[in-house]
Amino acid sequence: MSQLYASLFYQPEVTEIFSDTSMLGYMIQAEAALAQAQAQVGVIPHAVAAVITQVAKQGVDVLDQDSLAVAAGLAGNIAIPFVKQWTAAVQSVDTDAARYVHWGATSQDIIDTATILQCRAALEIIEQHLQQSYQIALHQAEQYRDQVMIGRTWLQQALPITLGHKFARWASALGRDLQRITQLKSRVLTIQLGGAVGSLASLLDQGSSVVTAFARQLDLNEPACTWHGERDRVVELAATLAIIVGNLGKMARDWSLMMQTEIAELFEPDAKGRGGSSTMPHKRNPVAAASVLAAANRVPALMCSVYQSMVQEHERSLGGWHAEWLSIPEIFQLCAGALIRTEEVLSGLQVNVDAIQRNLDMTQGLIMAEAVMMALAPEIGRLNAHHLIETACQQAIQQQRHLQDVVQELDEIKKIFSKEKIEEIFRPTTYLGNIQAQIDAVLAEAKGVAK
Amino acid sequence: MSQLYASLFYQPEVTEIFSDTSMLGYMIQAEAALAQAQAQVGVIPHAVAAVITQVAKQGVDVLDQDSLAVAAGLAGNIAIPFVKQWTAAVQSVDTDAARYVHWGATSQDIIDTATILQCRAALEIIEQHLQQSYQIALHQAEQYRDQVMIGRTWLQQALPITLGHKFARWASALGRDLQRITQLKSRVLTIQLGGAVGSLASLLDQGSSVVTAFARQLDLNEPACTWHGERDRVVELAATLAIIVGNLGKMARDWSLMMQTEIAELFEPDAKGRGGSSTMPHKRNPVAAASVLAAANRVPALMCSVYQSMVQEHERSLGGWHAEWLSIPEIFQLCAGALIRTEEVLSGLQVNVDAIQRNLDMTQGLIMAEAVMMALAPEIGRLNAHHLIETACQQAIQQQRHLQDVVQELDEIKKIFSKEKIEEIFRPTTYLGNIQAQIDAVLAEAKGVAK
Amino acid sequence: MSQLYASLFYQPEVTEIFSDTSMLGYMIQAEAALAQAQAQVGVIPHAVAAVITQVAKQGVDVLDQDSLAVAAGLAGNIAIPFVKQWTAAVQSVDTDAARYVHWGATSQDIIDTATILQCRAALEIIEQHLQQSYQIALHQAEQYRDQVMIGRTWLQQALPITLGHKFARWASALGRDLQRITQLKSRVLTIQLGGAVGSLASLLDQGSSVVTAFARQLDLNEPACTWHGERDRVVELAATLAIIVGNLGKMARDWSLMMQTEIAELFEPDAKGRGGSSTMPHKRNPVAAASVLAAANRVPALMCSVYQSMVQEHERSLGGWHAEWLSIPEIFQLCAGALIRTEEVLSGLQVNVDAIQRNLDMTQGLIMAEAVMMALAPEIGRLNAHHLIETACQQAIQQQRHLQDVVQELDEIKKIFSKEKIEEIFRPTTYLGNIQAQIDAVLAEAKGVAK
Amino acid sequence: MSQLYASLFYQPEVTEIFSDTSMLGYMIQAEAALAQAQAQVGVIPHAVAAVITQVAKQGVDVLDQDSLAVAAGLAGNIAIPFVKQWTAAVQSVDTDAARYVHWGATSQDIIDTATILQCRAALEIIEQHLQQSYQIALHQAEQYRDQVMIGRTWLQQALPITLGHKFARWASALGRDLQRITQLKSRVLTIQLGGAVGSLASLLDQGSSVVTAFARQLDLNEPACTWHGERDRVVELAATLAIIVGNLGKMARDWSLMMQTEIAELFEPDAKGRGGSSTMPHKRNPVAAASVLAAANRVPALMCSVYQSMVQEHERSLGGWHAEWLSIPEIFQLCAGALIRTEEVLSGLQVNVDAIQRNLDMTQGLIMAEAVMMALAPEIGRLNAHHLIETACQQAIQQQRHLQDVVQELDEIKKIFSKEKIEEIFRPTTYLGNIQAQIDAVLAEAKGVAK
Repeated sequence: MSQLYASLFYQPEVTEIFSDTSMLGYMIQAEAALAQAQAQVGVIPHAVAAVITQVAKQGVDVLDQDSLAVAAGLAGNIAIPFVKQWTAAVQSVDTDAARYVHWGATSQDIIDTATILQCRAALEIIEQHLQQSYQIALHQAEQYRDQVMIGRTWLQQALPITLGHKFARWASALGRDLQRITQLKSRVLTIQLGGAVGSLASLLDQGSSVVTAFARQLDLNEPACTWHGERDRVVELAATLAIIVGNLGKMARDWSLMMQTEIAELFEPDAKGRGGSSTMPHKRNPVAAASVLAAANRVPALMCSVYQSMVQEHERSLGGWHAEWLSIPEIFQLCAGALIRTEEVLSGLQVNVDAIQRNLDMTQGLIMAEAVMMALAPEIGRLNAHHLIETACQQAIQQQRHLQDVVQELDEIKKIFSKEKIEEIFRPTTYLGNIQAQIDAVLAEAKGVAK
Repeated sequence: MSQLYASLFYQPEVTEIFSDTSMLGYMIQAEAALAQAQAQVGVIPHAVAAVITQVAKQGVDVLDQDSLAVAAGLAGNIAIPFVKQWTAAVQSVDTDAARYVHWGATSQDIIDTATILQCRAALEIIEQHLQQSYQIALHQAEQYRDQVMIGRTWLQQALPITLGHKFARWASALGRDLQRITQLKSRVLTIQLGGAVGSLASLLDQGSSVVTAFARQLDLNEPACTWHGERDRVVELAATLAIIVGNLGKMARDWSLMMQTEIAELFEPDAKGRGGSSTMPHKRNPVAAASVLAAANRVPALMCSVYQSMVQEHERSLGGWHAEWLSIPEIFQLCAGALIRTEEVLSGLQVNVDAIQRNLDMTQGLIMAEAVMMALAPEIGRLNAHHLIETACQQAIQQQRHLQDVVQELDEIKKIFSKEKIEEIFRPTTYLGNIQAQIDAVLAEAKGVAK
Repeated sequence: MSQLYASLFYQPEVTEIFSDTSMLGYMIQAEAALAQAQAQVGVIPHAVAAVITQVAKQGVDVLDQDSLAVAAGLAGNIAIPFVKQWTAAVQSVDTDAARYVHWGATSQDIIDTATILQCRAALEIIEQHLQQSYQIALHQAEQYRDQVMIGRTWLQQALPITLGHKFARWASALGRDLQRITQLKSRVLTIQLGGAVGSLASLLDQGSSVVTAFARQLDLNEPACTWHGERDRVVELAATLAIIVGNLGKMARDWSLMMQTEIAELFEPDAKGRGGSSTMPHKRNPVAAASVLAAANRVPALMCSVYQSMVQEHERSLGGWHAEWLSIPEIFQLCAGALIRTEEVLSGLQVNVDAIQRNLDMTQGLIMAEAVMMALAPEIGRLNAHHLIETACQQAIQQQRHLQDVVQELDEIKKIFSKEKIEEIFRPTTYLGNIQAQIDAVLAEAKGVAK
Repeated sequence: MSQLYASLFYQPEVTEIFSDTSMLGYMIQAEAALAQAQAQVGVIPHAVAAVITQVAKQGVDVLDQDSLAVAAGLAGNIAIPFVKQWTAAVQSVDTDAARYVHWGATSQDIIDTATILQCRAALEIIEQHLQQSYQIALHQAEQYRDQVMIGRTWLQQALPITLGHKFARWASALGRDLQRITQLKSRVLTIQLGGAVGSLASLLDQGSSVVTAFARQLDLNEPACTWHGERDRVVELAATLAIIVGNLGKMARDWSLMMQTEIAELFEPDAKGRGGSSTMPHKRNPVAAASVLAAANRVPALMCSVYQSMVQEHERSLGGWHAEWLSIPEIFQLCAGALIRTEEVLSGLQVNVDAIQRNLDMTQGLIMAEAVMMALAPEIGRLNAHHLIETACQQAIQQQRHLQDVVQELDEIKKIFSKEKIEEIFRPTTYLGNIQAQIDAVLAEAKGVAK
């Protein structure tokens, strides 16, 4: 993707992890770990592994990335030219050692293992920001637990809620995302080592020992069998990131709607050069939301490619595996980008209490019609209450008066409720149901306390 | 979808669960559970709950589905006209009880809870068939653990594997799928009950107690807070089914390729009227594969819609929620359909041992070039071995002779290996690496035995 | 799909066209046309064609749909059991004629041709509603060409536009859609007739004549060659419908945003039982928008499946063709459904002039800052003007005063502009650029008048 | 995307067009054209336009891309910081001229117009390669019009075709793609110029004249109205490229299947370093096919994002427009990459006539069963012929004999056909239907000759 847009959609560390240079670095790491594992098991001499490890410490400078890029086009993957250059680099230090480079492995072993190493590194950053976002959302849920605002359904004003409840619901989703990441790790963070067709035939009877040592060397899990053609591990990881992005997209939709000039309840945090317009001084563009929403538009589509690419051929596939290379890094980058933007907004969101109140008052009490009806029902029966209030609402709308004023004049009501009581009924704070209990439950869940 | 195609793509029980009639049945079940929960908590009289429960037992016959279908178009969801008809049904028995129908709930509470009930029922069937497919694949892995065949990469013959290894890899993927289902249940199988904006305001201070009782009544989990707008639960479920379908699609691709006339190694089980052609007697159409592959093409696309629909507005959304209704049932149905077809193929697959052997022999020994090289390497050095065998291969190809014949004539080889030894080296069974250990690991994993 | 939701998402006529019964009817039509074409060319006796035509007139009643549905699952497509039943139906009238049924054709010939017949019928309905929607949008553009309202970018108020301009832009998109449909017809509405592998071998040397006669019989185009595996025709059709749905989705997003309680500028037309809520009397749910937006979420995903299904195997494919059957009908149905809902909203949209004015006034003149600056620039230089107005805006915001009041007090302004002139500058109607010319251009375009 | 993979998936010229540097160059071109247009109309002094044009000639060197990349993240698009730097560049030459930079335009005007300029340039390259591929496919259709091979359906051998017919069908699809590109140009290649909300208000009464001059300056079409929020133009372009990619994917699937070791009929052209394996000398990896298939997996998914992004808000949108920036360039690059690889394969495809013949013979005459039946039908009736040959086929399969040998022994046959005649009937060349006529029609179509 364009570097020009990286700052708009991505997160620097995760982008760095998926850079060409890092990818090659992880491939070198995989090759070095393979050599060490094989030396431990006795497949190759310890001295050879030492040389390979030493060259690996020089990092990617031993490679010529430009010629790698050219060669990849002919070879069909990056590992083939990489192994050639990497062998040459080892050879320049020790001819003998070069003979043992990439011993028994196939291109896909190195690319898949390097990909898992990338994913682990990137997942760590994402998990950390997810944890932070979760904590911030929980904090805001507590902070704004009593800040009454209008709840909206179908883009229409409905009944009052509190801003804290909104944060609690968001937090709850982020908490589930953290749980998902925890559960998938043991399944997904797994080495790949199978040789050409998954049998590790060229390692003769030492294949399994090398696999175990290789996994231990990289601190990754050991799979029961090779998974060159069964891609559910990688897909599960991407699918989980896609769920996270969906959750973030929901939040961005919400706050961008609340930032509308006519609503103006919440704003993305101020930042010099962000979202303003010199000729339209009233504008406050939801720049972070645009970025998160673009990710939430794009990641689902990339997932379609990822799921489709599972339909692979035989022991190692054609095209399906290739398609992964383009989508997995981008899903990680978009997820991380959406996450840091959301985190920033969650922590720095500006709340316009006046606007929140203005919007609550906008319907002149109509949003409290249900509350009045519920208060009245035990006294005069639900049907009567419904009929009475429905009529009062029509009157209020026609006369453009506040519903409370209309209600107060009704004889049926006056008989039952004092003016103070009516005022109380019309106060949105008194019609919030179990919102506080829900917020408590979300906070408790976060502490791992059983509800 | 067309009923004409249901038998081709779907599975009858799961299709039944997602039928209109069943959907309405689950909605009635949710309404009845709500009434019982509210009676337990004291929100409504026990007698009322008893009446509602009694009417619920009559099932969907109390509803007029045709007029529901018409009304849904105006109301924007099915629950609004449903509640009207349902209330009328209760009213026809007990006018008083009718006043308490759907008390405090919103349309989405009933639709979401009914959807979760559907998902639970369908998931049970899917889990059961997944378990059966897993067991069959494990059995076949053991059955064919020694059946040598050619392994293929990039659609090209590569090195030998065994058919059992292929089954073991498939089994391993199915095992992971079972694990995924187990992990998501506690998160996903959760009631929805929040009222208009998630606050359960009209239940006043009894909202939380009703939520607890409602969940217990349906034997579903209780969420910490409402999730009208945070759809990750439903999405996670669909995402997991999509992974299953991807795994099945991979298998179908494999077996359809192996059924090619020119390869002819495996065949879908015979069935009267299936896949044959009277004018082309040699044809054996992979009909089950076509069905599974169509699902594996379609479900990823539906997932794109599902992920996209997460970007919802405020407390309850517009359009995003609606889009779910169309995709979730179909993903379930396609997954179940693909699963039973795969299960049938896995259990009844016909193996053509002759064709497998013919294909192994097709390259006249070239597939064993690496094995020869590996055998030679310790004797004359890897580089020399490589050079020698590369030349022999070129000679074999040019002269259209068997590589073994060419190799046997080489002085360098004759010095080292007896004719018997060369024969042994060229035997594919001797070049299978750690395939047996992998199969054992997959079998052990299935028994829950730590590797 | 659920019948319960058909009224919410679909259009009855198009749904009828894609019903199982209609599909079978089109298949019968294709079979009859084939017989007639073959009789014309002399491949089969005229008497046989007469019998087949006569049986065809009885329609689908000669078929047993339930057993077709069962058989399709084994056969892998619906045409195989259909041809059996259809042959039997002909046989029951004339044993001899039955021998010539489906002569030389393959299953896919009949299914593809029937699909094109369905598409033609459905496209006609879509084109007609598209034309109507276009005319209505043009009419509304003229009707509201002077109705000033605030224009919004990034969900923020920006500068004034007119409602007519919004309609003109929508109309322009619909006009392009009509153009697209016109252009694709000759390419897409084409028979399929190739026999098993596209060669029509069993028709010996009469294949081409039959193709020509078959196309003429159905009033469809004749392709240069068979297209069993090259699916771009069908895909192009779906891709065009998807663009239409995208254009409609944009309109639905707009009007649903304008229906927000806080904005309240436009409303979907009233309809009994639509979008209201008895306990929330202020609600006006954008039910049509929800339906259109759900389509605009779903059709893009279905397109992903459609494009993917182009990657077919050899002469006739496995799975890819099958996937089409599920997506094409649904794309047509969702497109027609979104279209009639949009048409209804476009023609019956209720405009709240007061709210439009209130929103224009909401920023207290800030939206006119650019207009003031542009008026001032020729007098005192653009930079000075910019600086002056920027300061005035800050002052207006801080003091919560109307920008006009602040501006009127500035000495630099008083020197140049009279109070009347300032009032004029602040009038949104005077800052609408070339909106009227654009509306005229869109209207002219519709008349086919060259601009 | 990774540079490492660019050579594998992309095409250099198109990638260059969509590079950051080129993008900025097109933006400068748009700014310069705007200034010239405005000078022509009299909105800004000619001298100013001259200065701006002169600075534009220096190209992107006047910009600091690194700081642009940083600023884009805050501004929400690249045009905002670009205009700042661009203005500064003009200012460094002529302070006065700087005041008129970007006069009346909004960010989106410049980005959209620059995008259309990119698209036009890239489309030209794609059209050129499409034309070449079309011509090559036509040439091959003629070249191989008589090369009989087996046709395959459902991955099974069916009846004979010729290789030329396969090429003709592919060519026909490419021809339709060329037609599509021709038709969309006038609609799609259109400037964007509307100012903040599409009204060009700051150009007062000169908006329309500037639009006309701007379009003429860039040799692009003039739209009837602004299209900031109606994205069907860009989507149509992408949709057409996606159809092309689908057509190419179909071809790649075919040739990769024909390259299978067991089939070996066609091969991608040889190239040093491509697709070979030193330890598996028999391998011939379809590297180009992998690349094309990866594109055919990925582009459909990107299209899903593109269609979804049509649902935009109001006059200029939030997120939807942003999502376009990521998909459109990649669709172009993947299409161009798939195209040049297909072109190379089409022109250099190696045909293995021996393998083609071997595969034709593989079923021992079963593929000719229909031909025998058709020859026999006029003599003994279709039903008798069918029954006779069905039995003969079963016998041939059971006895593993050639069908011709079995048939020759049948008394019913001997009575009718001479041995020579039977031989002729079993010759695949005699059972090719109207394949030659179809090839001629495709060739004629290419010459624009009416069929």
